[in-house]
Amino acid sequence: MSLLERLSFNQITADPWSLEQVVRNCVENNFPYVAAWRHKLDGDAAKASALIRSADLRVSSLCRGGWFSAPTADERRQRITDNRIAIEQAAQLEAPVLVIVSGPANGQTLEDARATVLDGLLEVLPDAEKAGVILGIEPLHPMYAAERSVVVTLKQANDIAEQLASPYAQVVVDVFHVWWDPDVMQQIERARGRIAGFHVSDWPVPLPGILMGRAMMGDGVIELRRLREAVDAAGYGGPIEVEIFNDEIWKNADDSLMKLIQQRFIEHV
Amino acid sequence: MSLLERLSFNQITADPWSLEQVVRNCVENNFPYVAAWRHKLDGDAAKASALIRSADLRVSSLCRGGWFSAPTADERRQRITDNRIAIEQAAQLEAPVLVIVSGPANGQTLEDARATVLDGLLEVLPDAEKAGVILGIEPLHPMYAAERSVVVTLKQANDIAEQLASPYAQVVVDVFHVWWDPDVMQQIERARGRIAGFHVSDWPVPLPGILMGRAMMGDGVIELRRLREAVDAAGYGGPIEVEIFNDEIWKNADDSLMKLIQQRFIEHV
Repeated sequence: MSLLERLSFNQITADPWSLEQVVRNCVENNFPYVAAWRHKLDGDAAKASALIRSADLRVSSLCRGGWFSAPTADERRQRITDNRIAIEQAAQLEAPVLVIVSGPANGQTLEDARATVLDGLLEVLPDAEKAGVILGIEPLHPMYAAERSVVVTLKQANDIAEQLASPYAQVVVDVFHVWWDPDVMQQIERARGRIAGFHVSDWPVPLPGILMGRAMMGDGVIELRRLREAVDAAGYGGPIEVEIFNDEIWKNADDSLMKLIQQRFIEHV
Repeated sequence: MSLLERLSFNQITADPWSLEQVVRNCVENNFPYVAAWRHKLDGDAAKASALIRSADLRVSSLCRGGWFSAPTADERRQRITDNRIAIEQAAQLEAPVLVIVSGPANGQTLEDARATVLDGLLEVLPDAEKAGVILGIEPLHPMYAAERSVVVTLKQANDIAEQLASPYAQVVVDVFHVWWDPDVMQQIERARGRIAGFHVSDWPVPLPGILMGRAMMGDGVIELRRLREAVDAAGYGGPIEVEIFNDEIWKNADDSLMKLIQQRFIEHV
């Protein structure tokens, strides 16, 4: 099986494109998978699902659930409700995985916020099980600890998944978030049987910005092939998402982007 | 003993100031310690040392040695030589600690670069022992992994110090670099007996930049007191350095900076 058969286009890589454009470009360029973001479904997951399936594309994941921590109990309840909606949307899209970004501490201490994440996942796990949607716990790079995710290492994601002890609680490995970690290889091996996704991009030097700093594969220092082979060796054979937040790519996104992704994917992943 | 008796002014916090200005401001404001940077000694550590000692100030540390990894064997030799010079300068300044920033991979793989760091430290450790200067291995935040330090967690620094097995190989804990780490409390406890320094600043939200993003204590989300108490509980009673890289502070640095540091130090550290 060619690696290209695992290639998934994460729609955030070309943020200016409508879902229609994303689907058309994927089909014209033989991408088998697309990854969707909730805020880009125009509130209508059923319609998005019909569009994607009519094009014979598969959805690799839906981004995102999580964001559990909040200053008040009321707000934390709202987050749970929102996660239930996200699980439903993932099911409608036939996305096997809902990516979980845990959220920042939001006024809690780090320790309390981390406990809130675990509690939140425990609460929505039965919904995920019922819907047949895997909660894919994605650790984010520690530079996002204050603003996006109190879950910052694959070890932590593995610990949480272990505590949840369900085939519907797994982890997502994104190279941009984990490449620096001295324990990453060991934690990938530990994740055997519960890897729900693998995302690629690159870390350019110098990093141009905190949120929009990701680069095309090959334009940075991440040992992409080594990480992909480690994930494969740990038993993961599913889709590989290309997920790049980069202002230049967003500005210049045209059909050539799809060809460039395929070329770099083959060369570097 | 008041916490202020442990306060050290890291001269990079007011980068525009000459060493003379730093020393004068420390004395006038009763700071007992100052922390020095090599590139601000004007190549004359003996003269700097005389200036500092004539003011009855103590040096908490010299920054920095390390930066071991390089693309060629020749360059790696030069780095060793440079570390020997740094150790000598620390001894001249009567700095008990030379802060070690390991450096980026510089064209090596992460694994090789990390081995190079350990090899480099092993090679210069006898010089440090002879000079009576502690090598203080400082893990940097993982967002600096590509550009400044392949040592990114306190666990890694502890592992290295353990392997070096000398009272002259210890670790430095900087809150900005370690606050996000789910293992930080456990690793601080593990560092008992080999903590050579404690540095404070804060992590503002949003973070304005990668290098210059640090904030004054109290202007961010780091649980400063909790970390300081953990370090104290692990037996550290030495100087606490205020080390802030922040454009606004640099631009506006005047005597009021020293008062603000003292106030925030008392309130938040």
